[in-house]
Amino acid sequence: NKNSNIIFGNRGMSLEEEINQSNQYYLQQGIAVIHKKPIPIQIVQVDYPQRSAAVIKEAYFKQASTTDYNGVYRGYYLDFEAKETHNKTSFPLSNFHEHQIAHMKACVDQKGICFTLIKFTATQEIFLLPAAILFDYWDNQENGRKSIPKKVIVNGGFQIKYHVTPLIPYLKSIDKIIENLCNA
Amino acid sequence: NKNSNIIFGNRGMSLEEEINQSNQYYLQQGIAVIHKKPIPIQIVQVDYPQRSAAVIKEAYFKQASTTDYNGVYRGYYLDFEAKETHNKTSFPLSNFHEHQIAHMKACVDQKGICFTLIKFTATQEIFLLPAAILFDYWDNQENGRKSIPKKVIVNGGFQIKYHVTPLIPYLKSIDKIIENLCNA
Ligand SMILES: [Mg+2]
Ligand SMILES: [Mg+2]
Repeated sequence: NKNSNIIFGNRGMSLEEEINQSNQYYLQQGIAVIHKKPIPIQIVQVDYPQRSAAVIKEAYFKQASTTDYNGVYRGYYLDFEAKETHNKTSFPLSNFHEHQIAHMKACVDQKGICFTLIKFTATQEIFLLPAAILFDYWDNQENGRKSIPKKVIVNGGFQIKYHVTPLIPYLKSIDKIIENLCNA
Repeated sequence: NKNSNIIFGNRGMSLEEEINQSNQYYLQQGIAVIHKKPIPIQIVQVDYPQRSAAVIKEAYFKQASTTDYNGVYRGYYLDFEAKETHNKTSFPLSNFHEHQIAHMKACVDQKGICFTLIKFTATQEIFLLPAAILFDYWDNQENGRKSIPKKVIVNGGFQIKYHVTPLIPYLKSIDKIIENLCNA
């Protein structure tokens, strides 16, 4: 449907909200179990008032050592980051931290399926970019460019068109990746 | 080693600390990628002082909707709970919440490997209990008993003996489970 982007893409939802809603659908339908990992927090002080819930009074954000999402689908371990960019022609590698890349490489070594869901906010386009392409650009950024050209993402990734149930049917692209794994 | 329990089991480490240390070893050695999920927290108020880190001033603990740990090993999705009990002859089902069981059932439906690591603190014994046995007792508790007899855990589970690297070599038992899956 040509108008999907217009209808569903401009509600002001963040990519994470869109993914969370899609994961909820996948979970309810028994299709996959994928959750956003909670934000890691260092708790310093907790109050325990009588007759009411414990209150955290002092805590700090810790840097996430892994990625945004993980879970299981058709026997495969999935692990991915969600990233939005205002850029129109490329995706800057500065969106990633070294430890996130290291985490994804470790997961791929264990035969997990790793990827990034990238949303180009200017055009409301979402792509699933397999980790192998990200690793290529990441490992060569010292001598090369500091971003992945959109053209590479379009050609090497999978566009996820907005849909209704789920909003972002990204597991369809995972099906294709699994098919390629099985034929390899 | 007959003395392992005495040497390694009584340092006052919690089961979670023992598992975290073991997971760190597995990660460093490139054997598996398994992490404790952060505690989910509802953040209400955050201060942003000048020149220093953001401080969470009011937040509340949310009930975890899933389990303690998940990750990937040899292409398999692993998902598990860690539980300690002072009981000597059985493991009370009250240690679990309905939503944790529902989560593990959903993961098993996706061909994930789910289990509980149970530590009997009185004897410092640790067992890996496959989820299927837990589900059996959970689903029958209305008419039946509200705990899993230790005998069932001993016979249907896998004892994890304390070791050095890693402290709790629980992936050895996962290897046996995978072997059984492949032969089934
Ligand atoms: Mg993100
Ligand atoms: Mg626990």
